[in-house]
Amino acid sequence: MTFTALDHQHMAHALRLAERGLFTTQPNPRVGCVIAHGAEVVGAGWHQRAGGPHAEVCALRAAGERARGATAYVTLEPCAHHGRTPPCADALAAAGVARVVVAAEDPFPQVDGRGIEKLRAAGIAVETGLLREAARELNVGFFSRHERGRPWVRLKLAMSLDGRTALGNGESKWITGAAARADVQRWRARSSAILTGSGTVLADDPRLTVRLDEDASLPPPGRESVADPARGQGEGTAHATDWTEVPAAAFVPPLRVVLDRRLRTPAGSHVLDGSAPTLVLHGDGAACADDRFARAECRPVAERDGKLALPAVLAHLAARECNEVHVEAGPALCGALLAEGLADELLLYVAPALLGDDARPLLHLPALRSMDERWNLRLLDLRPLGADLRLRLRPEA
Amino acid sequence: MTFTALDHQHMAHALRLAERGLFTTQPNPRVGCVIAHGAEVVGAGWHQRAGGPHAEVCALRAAGERARGATAYVTLEPCAHHGRTPPCADALAAAGVARVVVAAEDPFPQVDGRGIEKLRAAGIAVETGLLREAARELNVGFFSRHERGRPWVRLKLAMSLDGRTALGNGESKWITGAAARADVQRWRARSSAILTGSGTVLADDPRLTVRLDEDASLPPPGRESVADPARGQGEGTAHATDWTEVPAAAFVPPLRVVLDRRLRTPAGSHVLDGSAPTLVLHGDGAACADDRFARAECRPVAERDGKLALPAVLAHLAARECNEVHVEAGPALCGALLAEGLADELLLYVAPALLGDDARPLLHLPALRSMDERWNLRLLDLRPLGADLRLRLRPEA
Repeated sequence: MTFTALDHQHMAHALRLAERGLFTTQPNPRVGCVIAHGAEVVGAGWHQRAGGPHAEVCALRAAGERARGATAYVTLEPCAHHGRTPPCADALAAAGVARVVVAAEDPFPQVDGRGIEKLRAAGIAVETGLLREAARELNVGFFSRHERGRPWVRLKLAMSLDGRTALGNGESKWITGAAARADVQRWRARSSAILTGSGTVLADDPRLTVRLDEDASLPPPGRESVADPARGQGEGTAHATDWTEVPAAAFVPPLRVVLDRRLRTPAGSHVLDGSAPTLVLHGDGAACADDRFARAECRPVAERDGKLALPAVLAHLAARECNEVHVEAGPALCGALLAEGLADELLLYVAPALLGDDARPLLHLPALRSMDERWNLRLLDLRPLGADLRLRLRPEA
Repeated sequence: MTFTALDHQHMAHALRLAERGLFTTQPNPRVGCVIAHGAEVVGAGWHQRAGGPHAEVCALRAAGERARGATAYVTLEPCAHHGRTPPCADALAAAGVARVVVAAEDPFPQVDGRGIEKLRAAGIAVETGLLREAARELNVGFFSRHERGRPWVRLKLAMSLDGRTALGNGESKWITGAAARADVQRWRARSSAILTGSGTVLADDPRLTVRLDEDASLPPPGRESVADPARGQGEGTAHATDWTEVPAAAFVPPLRVVLDRRLRTPAGSHVLDGSAPTLVLHGDGAACADDRFARAECRPVAERDGKLALPAVLAHLAARECNEVHVEAGPALCGALLAEGLADELLLYVAPALLGDDARPLLHLPALRSMDERWNLRLLDLRPLGADLRLRLRPEA
């Protein structure tokens, strides 16, 4: 199967549209759709929020009668099941679409190839795999949840050049500058959950909320704005010229998750203030009858070696439909996630400063006996943010 | 004084020529000269080695009679004194040059403005300051030695992403890859001295030589090749189309310097093998009668707080005409240089790997009480080298 330059152009357009749902589709994937006759776009749309119309429906509404005989470019396989909305495969067939190009197959058990089968059964030509990697990357958490049974885990770390996160006396505000801290808000915002440990709560009392008020026009991480020539009408159709027009009301605040085996989180902690949905995961031995947790949900999780079992934590979050989990925690929890092979990505902010060897280390990791045992990472991208640098890395397989 | 675009072009050309002396002029500065009538270059040259002709003389030879009425672009003020060669100011005047443009004034006490005076006295129009910063940067060590009485000190450090230079068991080979290690050879090669401590000698037994055999065609750090349209004849004139034609025989091997207060360097250490000039600096109390040091020079240096006094070490190296000192040492010596304000630049190689908090720290620095006390650095440049990154940084004033 070879795709034309025009096919690539329309799918890239659909991916840009999908990206507009970055902060609002939870727990659904971000999906975009473009309907075109040759070079002419007759309809375009994206999925904006769970319960709202899917991308295909938005694009079909915008296209109207002009969908007949057209090609639809969809970043994710159209659904085949009745969920909160009827199957998109049926809608595409009913509208008379002649060809459907799909970027990535949907791993969701109720779809998983059936959308494509349904389209083919209706006589529609279906081609798959165009810009698949980009489409999967956009929903890296959604794919992880369905394919691996756990969320995509991204560790956010801020350090000095010599790999230190706080002074020896514990002071850690602020290592990095305002631009880096604003960038962190965007990565929090796209996540389903923000995870920390009780040690960090005790030391820093973080809020772990997304400060939309400080930076109301959150751009998707990785780009500053999306300009888009397509026009349409209705919710999720491409009537917006800029993603900033996505209403803040559609934003789904990430679940705050505190790993607190012995329920040490103090009364009055910001994470217990009810300002965002909050989950406290504790050990079997701890009881959560306490008033402290009135505005949070408490759940027991299996323990292992005197700590909460991290695979059980992640399985629980996957069961709660968490796609991307953003971790802001100390060297012990971050190190344990990495050492257990449960950290998928590092988001590393580096300030051009030195703190010296009295300061706190980046990660607690088991001692290495030889250089061969080191944890190798692959650099995805590197960019300056004010005076700081941001590196995105993934452990090598 | 305003300079034309043509002036900039010729001076930039002269700077590229000067750079060809990067590895060979020790202890002299790197200097280039272009002689032109308008856009036409009639002669060009650079200083290649101490005792050899200066850049101006090389360019005048190439220009011959055409120097009359021309403009000479010189990256450093022409000399006014009889050293190993006669004064260049006289030679420029004798050749009938009408105008001299100088990038940087020469701080060498026997020049220091007198070259410019001499030219003006001969009726030549002299203008200064064109691309001065670039000219000073090229001879950062030479300027440091004459203006501050100490060499330019560059710390080379190789670390993991989490700021670790070796495993807990001491293993440090190799954190970074082949491209980074080859780059280090170039920075060693441009230095007057390579400095280490006896601790590093005991732990790693480094050679601290420049491996020209491994990478015979050393390009100047910071660029891969210099293409140059100018042509000339004779030594140091711009007959070469590429710096790689600088004969390896002209290379001046950097002095190996070991700080060894108590003369702990073991017999048979690579640094004592006589393969490069070697200086062992020791404390007053130690005596150097030993056979171990037969192929090295030993000198006592003042002590302070039970360590060799670093300002005295650097003053000694300046007195020996060391311009740039390249430091490859452990966290104690590097940290002390930084903490005492004696480190001018960090050359930091970062491997995309994690070693964990059991591994060795980058720098021993005094404990900080607040984030305001941190050591802020300014990033000069950042580049990938294979899978690694190289950062060049300087402490903020």
